[in-house]
Amino acid sequence: MLRTVSAALAAVSALALAAPAWADTLVDNVDGVTIDAAGKVKRFNGLVFDEDGKITQVLTRSDKRPQVDYRLDGEGRVMIPGMIDAHVHVMDIGFAALTLDLSNTTSLEDALAKIKAFAEANPGRPWIIGRGWNQEKWGLGRFPTAAELDAVVSDRPVWLERADNHANWGNTLAITTAGVTAKTPDPEGGKIIRDAKGAPAGVFVDYAVQLVGKVVPPPRPEDRDLAFAKAQEVLLGYGVTAVADMGTKMPDWTTYRRAGDAGRLQIRIMSYANSFETLETVAGPEPTVWLYDDKLRMGGIKLYLDGALGSRGASLKAPYHDDPGAKGLPLLTPAQLRNLMSRAAMDNFQTAVHAIGDAANAEVLAAVEELSESYTGDRRWRIEHAQIIDPVDLGRLGKHGVIASMQPLHQTSDRLMAEARLGPDRLDGAYPWRSVVTVGGRLAFGSDAPVEPADPFAGMAAAISRVDASGQPFGGWFPEETVNREQALAGYTSDAAFAGFAEGRFGRLLPGERADFLLVDRDPLFASPEALRETKVLQVWIGGVKVREAE
Amino acid sequence: MLRTVSAALAAVSALALAAPAWADTLVDNVDGVTIDAAGKVKRFNGLVFDEDGKITQVLTRSDKRPQVDYRLDGEGRVMIPGMIDAHVHVMDIGFAALTLDLSNTTSLEDALAKIKAFAEANPGRPWIIGRGWNQEKWGLGRFPTAAELDAVVSDRPVWLERADNHANWGNTLAITTAGVTAKTPDPEGGKIIRDAKGAPAGVFVDYAVQLVGKVVPPPRPEDRDLAFAKAQEVLLGYGVTAVADMGTKMPDWTTYRRAGDAGRLQIRIMSYANSFETLETVAGPEPTVWLYDDKLRMGGIKLYLDGALGSRGASLKAPYHDDPGAKGLPLLTPAQLRNLMSRAAMDNFQTAVHAIGDAANAEVLAAVEELSESYTGDRRWRIEHAQIIDPVDLGRLGKHGVIASMQPLHQTSDRLMAEARLGPDRLDGAYPWRSVVTVGGRLAFGSDAPVEPADPFAGMAAAISRVDASGQPFGGWFPEETVNREQALAGYTSDAAFAGFAEGRFGRLLPGERADFLLVDRDPLFASPEALRETKVLQVWIGGVKVREAE
Repeated sequence: MLRTVSAALAAVSALALAAPAWADTLVDNVDGVTIDAAGKVKRFNGLVFDEDGKITQVLTRSDKRPQVDYRLDGEGRVMIPGMIDAHVHVMDIGFAALTLDLSNTTSLEDALAKIKAFAEANPGRPWIIGRGWNQEKWGLGRFPTAAELDAVVSDRPVWLERADNHANWGNTLAITTAGVTAKTPDPEGGKIIRDAKGAPAGVFVDYAVQLVGKVVPPPRPEDRDLAFAKAQEVLLGYGVTAVADMGTKMPDWTTYRRAGDAGRLQIRIMSYANSFETLETVAGPEPTVWLYDDKLRMGGIKLYLDGALGSRGASLKAPYHDDPGAKGLPLLTPAQLRNLMSRAAMDNFQTAVHAIGDAANAEVLAAVEELSESYTGDRRWRIEHAQIIDPVDLGRLGKHGVIASMQPLHQTSDRLMAEARLGPDRLDGAYPWRSVVTVGGRLAFGSDAPVEPADPFAGMAAAISRVDASGQPFGGWFPEETVNREQALAGYTSDAAFAGFAEGRFGRLLPGERADFLLVDRDPLFASPEALRETKVLQVWIGGVKVREAE
Repeated sequence: MLRTVSAALAAVSALALAAPAWADTLVDNVDGVTIDAAGKVKRFNGLVFDEDGKITQVLTRSDKRPQVDYRLDGEGRVMIPGMIDAHVHVMDIGFAALTLDLSNTTSLEDALAKIKAFAEANPGRPWIIGRGWNQEKWGLGRFPTAAELDAVVSDRPVWLERADNHANWGNTLAITTAGVTAKTPDPEGGKIIRDAKGAPAGVFVDYAVQLVGKVVPPPRPEDRDLAFAKAQEVLLGYGVTAVADMGTKMPDWTTYRRAGDAGRLQIRIMSYANSFETLETVAGPEPTVWLYDDKLRMGGIKLYLDGALGSRGASLKAPYHDDPGAKGLPLLTPAQLRNLMSRAAMDNFQTAVHAIGDAANAEVLAAVEELSESYTGDRRWRIEHAQIIDPVDLGRLGKHGVIASMQPLHQTSDRLMAEARLGPDRLDGAYPWRSVVTVGGRLAFGSDAPVEPADPFAGMAAAISRVDASGQPFGGWFPEETVNREQALAGYTSDAAFAGFAEGRFGRLLPGERADFLLVDRDPLFASPEALRETKVLQVWIGGVKVREAE
């Protein structure tokens, strides 16, 4: 067959080359701050990006302004990279935000009014699910009843968790839907609160909760889509434009893909599968490509090596100070951990291992040391939380460039608990941010949202001060482990991107990266910790598109 | 903020509008045939498509040729739409094609040579899996042994199914991997063929097959990717450019998406989920959008109402002629069928119900009739196979515009078996293609590959003749149920697209549809059935891109 190229194509191409690009945008007159390619702070005043939303130029005052198609005046505001949260649970953020929160109710009447309003505002929800009630706080002197709930919502089951997670309160429809009657016996370890006739009165305690809990329907697909939309809203509200999703389940992934396919995916998600089954089903033989213009990628797996400090599940080298019989429990044997890490590394998947206690952290580091002999190259082994690291183990962290993915707000929330669990003599390696940097490890900062709020400015404030929102403790908790402001900014931007193999794509305001930026009302490198916590996010841009503007 | 649009953008836009499109292609001098918008045959001589691979013009000899960027000379060859197979199992096509086929081996030596060659050609496969051997055909007079297999493949387990599916032959590594030894007892209903010392000799019969079968590893992700690539190769080889995938499992879907994400998805897949779990996880609250430029969509669910005629699982109104005690067994109660169809229809998912026996078909039609009152609009209820329809039920098929998704090659393969199962007096509604059209139902033709070859030209030959490849039976089996050539072509093109809500996207060579076409060596509307079966597919184009060319 004969193939002829018409002259017309060549003619149009020549014209296109001669003309300027289609839609270059300059955001000028900003007070810009970013981490640069060398890891240092760089200041600038103008940012140019192209129609693909990629940065083409970063300008200082004296640079000549290019000819562009759109020109925006930043009015001198502070521009910083979009914040990256290196450890969140995206769908849980959404589901938590969609759940009725009764923790601030002051009386039964107050709670009932809130429940009624929530049910009316959510007519499509088949069950009304809530949490946080506490009849002691209300001064009620008794448990609330199903009848009281029925008076405000009777057309749908209502099921509300008590503040301490040890009891639930339901309306009559919830109880009858579950088939619980006066004849239902109390289960072992649980109690059905009953009325004078022995019928369920509304509240179920401890193991009795499951009598109704088991019929609460799982989320419908539309609930998942809604929760994801809500999660994006929450994250964007804090100026978070990218996250590492720690433990993506199969239906989470397909929810993200539905959003991507429909053009509803706004934030960038570095996904770590919750299991090898998910990882192999989704990614298959190697990490996925970056999808939707660098918005989504599954690059690794989340593994759990121990539990948490609060519940004494964290695996410690020595017994708990407040429970000398307990040292926590590793969830994997050393051989299991190595096998799983090896299985991931074999197909070039990254591993992110949850390790909180010093024994767990030592074990991950030992595994990394061994595996590094077989799996050379750029592996970026991650430890999630890395809360308590025995100082003797820190060296290995540096030697292998391990990424410590840490959550500054956990330190301020947990410090009294950590003191109780560890005692006064074992706090040297507790939340050791600066030590990680000093030994040559890599930091990535995050929130563990919804466990803590996904607020990177509160996180930066904690990171540079080790004091909480109320200024406690004065001078900071082990202030030698604070990081400086530049390190804090890097932890939430360039270093968090690096931790997800995303450097060069986003996390810095440099040519070639995506134009993900915030306009904020103060400079994070100058604000006091208290002022940092008050940062107002004025605009959020992702890939050169403004996705949110404060009112 | 101030937004200014530079003059440059407007200037370039004006130029672009004045210039011709970027890369229009004209394939001229073809003998083109398609079904048109009115369902009639349309002939043409030139096809123009744009850079998106969409048809912009369909030209006859006398039409003025437009100015284009590429011009190809079809040299008078026949151009027809890419064939659409309305019922396949995509991944199974690939896995079947990747399995060593020993069914044509003539001796043990021949088989061993093929096994050795296959193992050498597939060094990455952890197990060598095959099927089709038959020691009787070899004139061996005994079962083959593990030792004979070891002599050709000893580094990997080998596991080969006998032609009748009732025995498997393994090498020593397969047997030891499974932990089967001389001490392993025969399971109930099974037998381990043993040597003089009682050790497993290599062949396992009936229920003993699972002793080794249970350790055969499931496909790895790379196996799935390979199988999918192979399936595409097989389908394109037959000129099939689009398929309905009947019963997509979760890992099938993610395999298709990996291919789409990596630019390896060539064929178009109309996917019907294998379960509500898959449907809800993937598609969520409604059918997915068309992904990858109309290459992939999950729009419905496959349900099973009965089994097959051969195994007497098809649900019949009267007892089987050759087994008066059996009427088959419906797999769903009438209430279950309606509930499942309703659950799908509620979220605008299409249902494709497997129904083979006349009782099953009557039941689906009754369900459609009831559901049509609640679910109005364009539902396109599908019956898959629809092999035996009682003539009294045909009217309902027409009344509700039900789509009968039928496989012409099943008729030619099954006719003797169907005569045995149904007897001479109940064949009026057997494979009733023309009756479906006559009563106003809609046909969609397919192959059920890999059960039958995915060859649409063999299918068309059967559809217009009801004779098989050897010309049997003379004059055709119930020739009053043949369809004409135009209907046969429509069944594999426009009607198969309609059956998957894809009309306007592909299936016809008309402006606005994707340029999916074949160049073939003969005209399907003129060739004899025998000649049709010999059709050579010279080129396959999908979305304006040539994806395959015969040597």
